[in-house]
Amino acid sequence: MVVVAFVPEGRQPVQRILKLTLQYDGTDFVGWQRQASGTSIQGLLEDALRPIEGAAVTVHGAGRTDAGVHALGQVCSFSLTASIDPAALARALNAVLPPDVRVSQSEVVPDDFHARFSATGKIYDYRIVSAPFVSPFVRRYVWHVVQRLDQPAMQQATAMLVGEHDFAAFQAARTDVHRSIRTIRRIEWSGAGSSGDPLVMQVEGDGFLRHMVRNVVGTVVEIGIGRRPVDAMDGILASRSRARAGATAPASGLFLRQVLYSAKILV
Amino acid sequence: MVVVAFVPEGRQPVQRILKLTLQYDGTDFVGWQRQASGTSIQGLLEDALRPIEGAAVTVHGAGRTDAGVHALGQVCSFSLTASIDPAALARALNAVLPPDVRVSQSEVVPDDFHARFSATGKIYDYRIVSAPFVSPFVRRYVWHVVQRLDQPAMQQATAMLVGEHDFAAFQAARTDVHRSIRTIRRIEWSGAGSSGDPLVMQVEGDGFLRHMVRNVVGTVVEIGIGRRPVDAMDGILASRSRARAGATAPASGLFLRQVLYSAKILV
Repeated sequence: MVVVAFVPEGRQPVQRILKLTLQYDGTDFVGWQRQASGTSIQGLLEDALRPIEGAAVTVHGAGRTDAGVHALGQVCSFSLTASIDPAALARALNAVLPPDVRVSQSEVVPDDFHARFSATGKIYDYRIVSAPFVSPFVRRYVWHVVQRLDQPAMQQATAMLVGEHDFAAFQAARTDVHRSIRTIRRIEWSGAGSSGDPLVMQVEGDGFLRHMVRNVVGTVVEIGIGRRPVDAMDGILASRSRARAGATAPASGLFLRQVLYSAKILV
Repeated sequence: MVVVAFVPEGRQPVQRILKLTLQYDGTDFVGWQRQASGTSIQGLLEDALRPIEGAAVTVHGAGRTDAGVHALGQVCSFSLTASIDPAALARALNAVLPPDVRVSQSEVVPDDFHARFSATGKIYDYRIVSAPFVSPFVRRYVWHVVQRLDQPAMQQATAMLVGEHDFAAFQAARTDVHRSIRTIRRIEWSGAGSSGDPLVMQVEGDGFLRHMVRNVVGTVVEIGIGRRPVDAMDGILASRSRARAGATAPASGLFLRQVLYSAKILV
């Protein structure tokens, strides 16, 4: 579908900022951001928007989900001069995007809105199945841990992380650490750990370092299976040393659930 | 893992009947039954059992699910002389089968048990999402119908099918009709039709003709979108003519939920 903006002579095209909310199954993508090779969500959207706009469109994501990470509510924004109503834009995009990426909402937002810079926080879910086998229907969307997990110990360990801390210990190795202080507003656990009712760690924060959620989960699962004591978490956090924390949990269990904006920005 | 039965000289190997309960995501398979080409569930199991038994094993399934059809509780049986306890057998199979097929239960059953001939009935679920778009996380496990569905009309139409009837109108075209009389014990509808809460038609019967559930669903969705009146169902059933019924609904929405056996057989 190609919709080219019709601009009457001598009149400036009206530029609007569009905000899209996206769901994607990250299994087969290289992540949000365009890469030298492989399929990215950003690349798919920019390629789908180009014929609609009749020119290149730069799409800004709220967060750069890594390869294999899923989204229930990723947000992106871009400016568009093409005259198309937001609902029609969503339909046009869903008609050309692969079915693993869906536009769930589309709206015109104030000119100063930016998916990343306007965000006031994010909510991630990390899903774990702790059972002898995992159902074929959820295997792409969980981390399968064969061992039994001490859930009270895990909850206790993550409770220590709530608040403003330097999370350098949980930052991806080989990252330029400029500022690794973040605030985790809440960490909540739910679910039983079965395929039908996975164990879910939901975490809300003002922002997250690269691999931060997965490194926290990798560490807390080591506590859950008894390889480390509960109070190890305090020392790891205080050390600010990546080498002290656990392994990075698999991308398959991680979901960007929601990006938060202040109500003021969107009114 | 290879476990070869040790048979002391002069002693007959003990042959036991094993019953497995299986889950599989049918998306990438040619169906239950071995085919000339492509991967079948039966083929995967027979290939996985051969080194355990040290000889070819013939696996009998309760029903031949077609290409793309899923299972939450398919049942199969086979005889084994290899000495291996049922739980170890399940672990050994899950270690070598692709993750889209899982053994959820494994037990030794009486010698006269046969997955197909001992079955007294089956329960199928058919799942539909009726919404502008379908979530990437459920798209493989539903039929996505873009139109609005008149659910009360659909329930009314399928209520006419309960009982003993000649279901020839809903049998796959080009099937040798020997006996197309079946009894549907119940048809129950639940769910809202959204990605998070799909509309589910659950049907229990003593047996099902090839494509029967999918042809019933294809017909009832035509009623749901208003292309046919509710009372068309009676005439279609009475006609015993495949040409009168609707199109075959996609395999992606169909799940073999459970195979029923009389308690007597398994005691």
